[in-house]
Amino acid sequence: MALVVTKFGGTSVASPERIKNVAKRLVAKRQAGDDVVAVVSAMGKTTDELVSLARAMNTAPSKREMDMLLSTGEQTSMALLAMAIQALGYKAISFTGWQAGIVTDNEYSLAKIENIDAHRIREAIADGYIVVVAGFQGLSLGGDITTLGRGGSDTTAVALAYGIDADVCEIYSDVDGVYSADPRVAPRARKLDFISYDDMLEMSSAGSGVLQARAVEFARKYGVVIHSRSAFSDAPGTLIKEAVPDMEQAVVSGIAHDTSEIRFTLRGLPDNPGVAAKLFATLAAYKVSVDMIIQNSVADDKANISFTFPGNQKAAVEEAVSRVKRDMPFDRVDIDEDIAKVSLVGTGMKSSPGIAARAFKSLADNEISLKMISTSPIRISVVVEASQVTAAVRCLHTEFGLDSDTVFEETQLSPEEIAAKMNKGR
Amino acid sequence: MALVVTKFGGTSVASPERIKNVAKRLVAKRQAGDDVVAVVSAMGKTTDELVSLARAMNTAPSKREMDMLLSTGEQTSMALLAMAIQALGYKAISFTGWQAGIVTDNEYSLAKIENIDAHRIREAIADGYIVVVAGFQGLSLGGDITTLGRGGSDTTAVALAYGIDADVCEIYSDVDGVYSADPRVAPRARKLDFISYDDMLEMSSAGSGVLQARAVEFARKYGVVIHSRSAFSDAPGTLIKEAVPDMEQAVVSGIAHDTSEIRFTLRGLPDNPGVAAKLFATLAAYKVSVDMIIQNSVADDKANISFTFPGNQKAAVEEAVSRVKRDMPFDRVDIDEDIAKVSLVGTGMKSSPGIAARAFKSLADNEISLKMISTSPIRISVVVEASQVTAAVRCLHTEFGLDSDTVFEETQLSPEEIAAKMNKGR
Repeated sequence: MALVVTKFGGTSVASPERIKNVAKRLVAKRQAGDDVVAVVSAMGKTTDELVSLARAMNTAPSKREMDMLLSTGEQTSMALLAMAIQALGYKAISFTGWQAGIVTDNEYSLAKIENIDAHRIREAIADGYIVVVAGFQGLSLGGDITTLGRGGSDTTAVALAYGIDADVCEIYSDVDGVYSADPRVAPRARKLDFISYDDMLEMSSAGSGVLQARAVEFARKYGVVIHSRSAFSDAPGTLIKEAVPDMEQAVVSGIAHDTSEIRFTLRGLPDNPGVAAKLFATLAAYKVSVDMIIQNSVADDKANISFTFPGNQKAAVEEAVSRVKRDMPFDRVDIDEDIAKVSLVGTGMKSSPGIAARAFKSLADNEISLKMISTSPIRISVVVEASQVTAAVRCLHTEFGLDSDTVFEETQLSPEEIAAKMNKGR
Repeated sequence: MALVVTKFGGTSVASPERIKNVAKRLVAKRQAGDDVVAVVSAMGKTTDELVSLARAMNTAPSKREMDMLLSTGEQTSMALLAMAIQALGYKAISFTGWQAGIVTDNEYSLAKIENIDAHRIREAIADGYIVVVAGFQGLSLGGDITTLGRGGSDTTAVALAYGIDADVCEIYSDVDGVYSADPRVAPRARKLDFISYDDMLEMSSAGSGVLQARAVEFARKYGVVIHSRSAFSDAPGTLIKEAVPDMEQAVVSGIAHDTSEIRFTLRGLPDNPGVAAKLFATLAAYKVSVDMIIQNSVADDKANISFTFPGNQKAAVEEAVSRVKRDMPFDRVDIDEDIAKVSLVGTGMKSSPGIAARAFKSLADNEISLKMISTSPIRISVVVEASQVTAAVRCLHTEFGLDSDTVFEETQLSPEEIAAKMNKGR
C-alpha cells in the first residue's frame, strides 16, 4: 500500500495501443494495492504538429497563445488514458494543470511552479480513483494557462508527488534507469541501484539525458524520492534520493559525456580587469548558456578566453561576440566544433583526494589530450577531441572500477528510441 | 462604434488559410471602429477525429472525459485565430469557456448555461483587444469542463452577447441568411431581411438548418438580436429579433421542410384511456423525440396510433415498441420511411383565418395527398410522400406570395457546403 506518482513520456502514449498499455500498468499497480496518480505528456509528435500549425498563422506567435495551444496536447492524452483505464473496469478521472492546482508564475513557455493546491487530487484518490494529470502545464495567478518548458512533465510529476506527499515519484521512459555511463558508448556500463540528488544533478548537467535537471532540483529541494525506470519492463530502475552512508562508498558514481557543445576562443583580448565581465555579461544578454570558461594571460598584456556552450546557440554567440569586438577589439576568434566533454561525477570525491590526478593519468596513458579542465567538489570535467570521446569514457569507467561483468546489448532499442534518449523533449 | 459578438463555425476555420480569412474580417470590423468578440468552433473534422480516438480507447467513454477531450478542439482553433489576428498587427487574446466565465450545470455533453461572468472579456475589450472565445464549452460549478451539445457554439455566442450587452450577435455560416424556403428546393425563395424569434423557432424545429433552435430560444429569452450572415461575403443577412408591427404584414414568413423523419403506425391497439400515455411514456424513456402524433378509433374497440420521429432513432423506437407490445398487445406496426414534413410558418397566421384551408386547397390542386396534419397558432405542418416534397414546397411558396423575381442559382455552394447546410453540427 503506497501512494505513487507515475510519469509517462510522449513515446509511451504515442498511439492508442501504447496508451492502453500504460492503462494496464496503472491498473496492475492499483490491483497490487497502491494509490496511483499518473502524469502524462502529449502523444508522440502532437507538440511538433501544433507548433507547425502556429507557425502557419504567425511567424512569431505570442507565448500566451502558444501555451494555450500546446496545453491541448496533454489534455488530449490524459482524457484518452482515463478512458482506457475505465475500459478495464477501474475508476479514473483526469485533471488539467489548472484543475490539479498547479499554480505558476506568468512566464509563458518557461513558467515556474509557485504553489500546489492538490485538494482535488487528494479527494479523488480518497474516492478510489486512478488520477490522471496533464504534465507540462499550470495556471498563472492571473488565470492564464502556462507551460513549464523543457522537462516540464517530469517537474509536474515531482511537484505533485510533493503536493500529495507520495511515497515515490516513478518516471518511466525508454531507458531502464541511470547508468554509470551511456551503455552505447561504454558497453560495460552498470545500471545504478541508487544515486544521490547531487550526483544526478551533475550527471544531468554533464549530458546524461535520463532525467531533466530541473525535476531533480525540485526533488532535492523537497525531498521527493524519484524512481527512474523502464516503460517497457517491470524491472526495478534507479532510485534518486538523498545520499546515505552506504551510497558514499563509491567514489565515482558515473561518467557522463556530452557532444552537443562547441568552443569559441577569443585571442588577443586586452589583459585588464573587467574584460571577462564585459564578455560574459554580453553573452548573458543574448541568453547564451555558457558552460566552461578558461582565461589565460599571454605576452604583451594580452589574454585569451575560451568558453563552451550548446552548439544550437552558435548564431547568438557570433552576434554577441561581434558586438563585444566593437567596444573591446581583439585579434581573432577560433571556433572548435569537434569537441566532447567527459565528466566524472561522485559525491565521494569530496573525501577522496587524488581522484583528478588518477583521471588525468588514465587519460594520458590512453593518449587522450585535454583541451580544457573544469572541476566542482563532486565533478571533474575535461574537454577532449570528439573522436576520442568513446576511448575517454571507457578508460575512466574501467579506471574507477565501474565496469560490469556483463556487456550491454542495445538490440532492444529502436533508432527512434535512441534518438529520443539522446535528445529528450518535455 | 458597436459592440459585436461574431460566431464562426467549423467550416469557416477548417484550414490555416480560412482562419487567416476570419482574422481579416475581424480586423476589418475593428478598423471600422467596432469592439469585437469572436466565438469559434473546432476546425473542420477535428471533433470527428477526437471521437474516433476516444472509441479506440473505450466503446462507451465517460461523458466527463469525452467533454475534456472534445473541448481541446475549440481551444486549438481559438489560439490559432488569436495568433492570426496578431500577425495582422492587432491585439488579440483567447479565452477558454472557463476563462470566459461560462458557468454550466453538470450535464456533461449536454450542459446548460447557468450563468455568465464576463468580466475578463469586458476588461480585455476595454484594453483594446479583439477577444476570441472557445464555443461549445463551459465550466460546471464542480470545476469540470463541460460541453453544450449540438448547436453549442451558436448558444455560446448568444449567451456572451447577453453577458456583455452586445449590440448584435452575428452568426456566420455558409448560407447568407434565412430564406423563405430552402433555395435548392424552391429556386424563387427570398432572403428575409427580418424574422421574429417565434417564426425562426418554428422554422428551425420544422427543419430549417440555418440556426440552432436552442440559440434562438436563448436569444428570445434575453432579447439578443441575431444577425445570420454569410462567412464568404459582406452582404447583410437576416436579423432575428422581437416582432415589430411592420414585420407582421407578411402572413406567412416561410416554408420549411424536413425529410429526416420517419413514421410508425401501430394498428389495432386496445381503444381505452391510457393507451397513448403508456406508449409515449415508454418512447420518452428511450429518449425518442416524437414529433407529430395522430390517434383514431377503428371498428371493434380498436385504435390506430401514428407518430413521426427522427430517422436516426429508429432502433430505439423499435425496442420501445416491442416492450410496449408485451404489456399491451396490438395487431401490427407499419413503417413509412419515405415521408417529408412541409411547414408554413408565420406569426401573422394568428390574426388571419383561413390560411390552413388555402394551403390544403393549393396542395390538393397540385395532386399532393396529405398523410398527417399538425398545427400550432403560428405553424401548419403536413406530412406528404417524400417524392412530392419539392412540389409541395413550391406550390405553397407561390400560393402565399413568397416568390422572388429572381431565381436562385447555387453555383457558389460546394457539395460539402450543401451537406454542411443540410446537417448542421455544433
